[in-house]
Amino acid sequence: MAGNTWGQQFTVTSFGESHGPAIGCVIDGCPPGVAIDESLLQRDLDRRKPGTSRYVTQRREADEARIVSGVFEGVTTGTPIAIIIENTDQRSRDYSKIKDVFRPNHADYAYLQKYGIRDYRGGGRSSARETAVRVAAGAVARKILSERWGIAIQGYLAQMGDIRLGCTDLDAANDNPFFCAEPARVAELEDYINQLRRDGDSIGARIDVVATGVPAGWGEPVFDRLDADIAKALMSINAVKGVEIGDGFDVVAMRGSEHRDEMHPDGFASNHSGGIQGGISTGQAIRASMALKPTSSITIPGDTVDTAGQATQMRTTGRHDPCVGLRAAPIAEAMLAITLLDHALRHRGQNADVEPSMAPLAGGPMF
Amino acid sequence: MAGNTWGQQFTVTSFGESHGPAIGCVIDGCPPGVAIDESLLQRDLDRRKPGTSRYVTQRREADEARIVSGVFEGVTTGTPIAIIIENTDQRSRDYSKIKDVFRPNHADYAYLQKYGIRDYRGGGRSSARETAVRVAAGAVARKILSERWGIAIQGYLAQMGDIRLGCTDLDAANDNPFFCAEPARVAELEDYINQLRRDGDSIGARIDVVATGVPAGWGEPVFDRLDADIAKALMSINAVKGVEIGDGFDVVAMRGSEHRDEMHPDGFASNHSGGIQGGISTGQAIRASMALKPTSSITIPGDTVDTAGQATQMRTTGRHDPCVGLRAAPIAEAMLAITLLDHALRHRGQNADVEPSMAPLAGGPMF
Amino acid sequence: MAGNTWGQQFTVTSFGESHGPAIGCVIDGCPPGVAIDESLLQRDLDRRKPGTSRYVTQRREADEARIVSGVFEGVTTGTPIAIIIENTDQRSRDYSKIKDVFRPNHADYAYLQKYGIRDYRGGGRSSARETAVRVAAGAVARKILSERWGIAIQGYLAQMGDIRLGCTDLDAANDNPFFCAEPARVAELEDYINQLRRDGDSIGARIDVVATGVPAGWGEPVFDRLDADIAKALMSINAVKGVEIGDGFDVVAMRGSEHRDEMHPDGFASNHSGGIQGGISTGQAIRASMALKPTSSITIPGDTVDTAGQATQMRTTGRHDPCVGLRAAPIAEAMLAITLLDHALRHRGQNADVEPSMAPLAGGPMF
Amino acid sequence: MAGNTWGQQFTVTSFGESHGPAIGCVIDGCPPGVAIDESLLQRDLDRRKPGTSRYVTQRREADEARIVSGVFEGVTTGTPIAIIIENTDQRSRDYSKIKDVFRPNHADYAYLQKYGIRDYRGGGRSSARETAVRVAAGAVARKILSERWGIAIQGYLAQMGDIRLGCTDLDAANDNPFFCAEPARVAELEDYINQLRRDGDSIGARIDVVATGVPAGWGEPVFDRLDADIAKALMSINAVKGVEIGDGFDVVAMRGSEHRDEMHPDGFASNHSGGIQGGISTGQAIRASMALKPTSSITIPGDTVDTAGQATQMRTTGRHDPCVGLRAAPIAEAMLAITLLDHALRHRGQNADVEPSMAPLAGGPMF
Repeated sequence: MAGNTWGQQFTVTSFGESHGPAIGCVIDGCPPGVAIDESLLQRDLDRRKPGTSRYVTQRREADEARIVSGVFEGVTTGTPIAIIIENTDQRSRDYSKIKDVFRPNHADYAYLQKYGIRDYRGGGRSSARETAVRVAAGAVARKILSERWGIAIQGYLAQMGDIRLGCTDLDAANDNPFFCAEPARVAELEDYINQLRRDGDSIGARIDVVATGVPAGWGEPVFDRLDADIAKALMSINAVKGVEIGDGFDVVAMRGSEHRDEMHPDGFASNHSGGIQGGISTGQAIRASMALKPTSSITIPGDTVDTAGQATQMRTTGRHDPCVGLRAAPIAEAMLAITLLDHALRHRGQNADVEPSMAPLAGGPMF
Repeated sequence: MAGNTWGQQFTVTSFGESHGPAIGCVIDGCPPGVAIDESLLQRDLDRRKPGTSRYVTQRREADEARIVSGVFEGVTTGTPIAIIIENTDQRSRDYSKIKDVFRPNHADYAYLQKYGIRDYRGGGRSSARETAVRVAAGAVARKILSERWGIAIQGYLAQMGDIRLGCTDLDAANDNPFFCAEPARVAELEDYINQLRRDGDSIGARIDVVATGVPAGWGEPVFDRLDADIAKALMSINAVKGVEIGDGFDVVAMRGSEHRDEMHPDGFASNHSGGIQGGISTGQAIRASMALKPTSSITIPGDTVDTAGQATQMRTTGRHDPCVGLRAAPIAEAMLAITLLDHALRHRGQNADVEPSMAPLAGGPMF
Repeated sequence: MAGNTWGQQFTVTSFGESHGPAIGCVIDGCPPGVAIDESLLQRDLDRRKPGTSRYVTQRREADEARIVSGVFEGVTTGTPIAIIIENTDQRSRDYSKIKDVFRPNHADYAYLQKYGIRDYRGGGRSSARETAVRVAAGAVARKILSERWGIAIQGYLAQMGDIRLGCTDLDAANDNPFFCAEPARVAELEDYINQLRRDGDSIGARIDVVATGVPAGWGEPVFDRLDADIAKALMSINAVKGVEIGDGFDVVAMRGSEHRDEMHPDGFASNHSGGIQGGISTGQAIRASMALKPTSSITIPGDTVDTAGQATQMRTTGRHDPCVGLRAAPIAEAMLAITLLDHALRHRGQNADVEPSMAPLAGGPMF
Repeated sequence: MAGNTWGQQFTVTSFGESHGPAIGCVIDGCPPGVAIDESLLQRDLDRRKPGTSRYVTQRREADEARIVSGVFEGVTTGTPIAIIIENTDQRSRDYSKIKDVFRPNHADYAYLQKYGIRDYRGGGRSSARETAVRVAAGAVARKILSERWGIAIQGYLAQMGDIRLGCTDLDAANDNPFFCAEPARVAELEDYINQLRRDGDSIGARIDVVATGVPAGWGEPVFDRLDADIAKALMSINAVKGVEIGDGFDVVAMRGSEHRDEMHPDGFASNHSGGIQGGISTGQAIRASMALKPTSSITIPGDTVDTAGQATQMRTTGRHDPCVGLRAAPIAEAMLAITLLDHALRHRGQNADVEPSMAPLAGGPMF
């Protein structure tokens, strides 16, 4: 109810503040018999970790995940998996500047109105640091999706500022610090970020994420549509302001004759729908996008008020990302993985006996 | 778990198929002492109802809602409110054409893969007819939001095809069949739809919805962010493929210095964020948008397969909307209302004792 | 959250007041492809129905259940099944005597304190009439449990007042109006009830319920233990004040060497545990009991207060059960069935891939 | 869904195995502004802790709870409170005797059938060690119940074997290792346990728990009745086989004229109902009982089978409680506290606006 749990059959309960002792999560409902260990989590955590390139925040967290339950002799037992990541880089510092001032475009003011109290150290619970535990939980979900259904999930940077990027090589997204799937244009991104830093400003980004291998039939028809849950999953990531499935907002100007994905005996002919119809997966690739706002932690001063309601100004110094979207691809992948696995288990709970009378169609093209 | 319930404290459980005996819902957790009757529901139902103008489907449903529980002597008692809408326009007709053929861009194929069976009459559970019960439940939520917090919610058509519409007169959206808030351009929309009909094609649409008067503090910080739940609420509406909060996808190309909503002692200076920060309402107007795809129920034949996997073609005749977005504004309003009220009640469950040390800031401009 | 929904994967959402227009429920998450119709529900409804013998209330309700969704061509589709039972015996009567007076041992006072309003007609939502919808939903669950796992569920009267009854013939419980499984003693029960009526008083009862054929492995280890959920299921029935699993309160005076169910290669040697260990079914018969209080709707006057807090007296006339336990066996069966099916589906959602390395043991004796 | 979370508005998610690295929980939905620290948890943990008297298991766990989130500057922030208790007494030992053998009356067999794998070290997840985290979470709930509503909760030993105990001095229950509220009879209990140890056997127990100060109006009418949730809460405790509210199973032989709690202008005249009517609290003291079975970890050998299905015998040596009920009072108190607080917050979420027209009646006598 207080909303720190995701999912219904494969659930992730997240806890922790940016500068508290630790962050972590409890995964409940994980199928038993899955081989996992800390190194599995670490691979994905390292992809999201701050301080890995000069284009992201220089906060240095070891981000070492420790599994304290639910795994025995190297495999999951079906009982809750608790994952704890100690916060090691909690420098003792002077918070007096932010303690009584609301940073514009941050959660400071809303938290104080809601709770009457807030942990102002580094944003507390509203910090993007919380997303590390999503990535850890997502690593477990991805392992299962991959092993049992052959599902692969990959996110990439589709746009940063005015730079629109294609997807010429999906695998290459993991080989550069921008998660750019059009490797020839990485230098362009580097220049852009360097200029931003000089300007003391920040920029938004668009991340696309694709899941291949998802069988037809996952998702629920009405409220808990698979696309609705994916929309929630992505919108729940810090700084996200928009979400699309398949062609997304482009459908507004499309005609029905153009948008419909025709079906042939050898499979779907196109994938405008992004792999979901009526809230249920079709066997096509699942495609989603999200828009991340430019962070307001910038050095250009901005007007704000203090906790006494008096006018003041705010200027953020210190370790910050000029484009928070640059580290968001692994988070999007994780949330998509958790959401898919949750729906997979829900689906088979109700429909394990179903034997479709017709063999599934081939998924057809990704885009 | 099978996903036909929305909400946690104010819940709506929906049931019914397009051509079954009835559709309806059960509202649980409604505060007691609220004056409601069928006429309240009817006002909103009539706004969504098919057959009300020549621009929408000519299916004629009375859409008369009957309240069978939870209301006593004209006010809610706090117990479940069951609402039933009998399906009156279930013409006996020949379904042989669609029984064994999958309509492209519909849920037919996905349902059969999921359940091994489907009610093919008019789309069964996947029909937009289901949204009538959302509108009925939304009417109850709106009444409470209005009475207790002074909240007003209004949706309008922001784009249809290439026609981008402004919001010059929000109230006027209820005065034309397009929910157009720029009344001077209604004739343009009429021409567009008439041409579409002649082409036998359909078109997408974009609906914007605004809630004013929402106090600061509603929403939860991590997964159940208010914006995440709004995203899910809107994406769960039939045909929706994209959702935005505030500036939405425009943030991708914005700088932090431009996007942040500065705060002054007399209130917020702008509303790029759409009224939500860190998942929690700020007291600004809440702004959301959704993109609806063009329906594939068109007269231009399209390739498809039948349930034996053989190639065939589909051409939809009969009563259909050329632009399903035209009736979607009341549905978006209803889902926003239900989501807001659910969060309002959840918030006060946890935080009823909180007395914020600072008076709330004025919300500032809507856009 | 307002608590009118049972279950997580197979859910039942109940609605309706004793003297409102209708009662009913929505079943969500029902597996598709199950043949059900109204006659299936009616068989169990008739077993619970008032007015069927001279030993129970003479209220005459047709209790005709109507299925309005989720069933197509005679089988479930996997979408929500809405069941509606119209209240036909709402005699127009004078409620002035109970409108402003709290009946002792009823929910009247608690409802008014909770909601500030109550539907006083016949107890409104707190009436045992609500249990009819549980029985209808239970009939669906029983069908599935029987068809897919061969599970049989039977309740019987184990004690009424000081009369302790054995279980000499479980099947015979359905052949007499007392659900007595020791048929030789039915006359004794008749005499007892007749005397009670003359005294204008009421009496408590104990109902036992048994499920055979439940496979090992259903239930969850910690909070959602199968026995914990059964305890909740039975305690949620009107008038129930105690619940037991297996030997129940007798274990207090038992030694470990006596209570443990030893295991042999040919099966369990005893069933003190009632078929559940660590919250999970063992393959033994599941045995549970519940204690129902004597109704306070009696003709002997009792002290009470009115809604102004003034002293007064209450004496109930009209149609009432001298022993509400006499109609409770079908309700206990229904709640057990719903709970078992919910856990069955939850279990396979998480563990559908599990292949136990050892064949299941035989369940052994029932008692 | 996998059932390791309790509650809806004040939720507790439990994790950890008996001999894994750590156990713990995440509390979500805790009201903000409550002063808590580790010492608060420790007081209750120490009451449940093993090794504190010669009458309980000699396993020595420090049971030191560490709060790693959700508390800032000594008060709760409204965000999730994660509590971790490291397992310090995981002696390296030889598990070969229990690895492949099912202990009778334990969860071993059921777990293996469910998950295909089990952590056999000390019972893994099925160990009563898990209840330590419930006690820690319960300490937080009790603090809030006490501070905001003046509620006090106390459990005591009501029966052990054939020794039935009264409640002559409720406060004294905390002053002896038996939680005995009839202090004159402690010596009798000591003798009984000493004899049991000599016999190498174990015994059952009955624990009663009382909450005073609970206002009228908490609980939900149908499935989530307050008594139903208390029944589930208590039945979810290891070894519990029976639960009662108020007079419990004694109601079976009571008449309505005897059982009803009459109401006078100065309050309730009796408390047979245990403080709950129609699932909702009445303002009377809430009384519940639970029966705990005798542990089967005894030195008298018992028949069982191994994981190959072959006959063998089991004899438990080492550190075990001859009466697990002796440490159960704090666990019952904790579960009652968590359940009450959850319902308190749920109630005010829906009904915060309700102003009952009548002042509450005095609760009257406890028994």
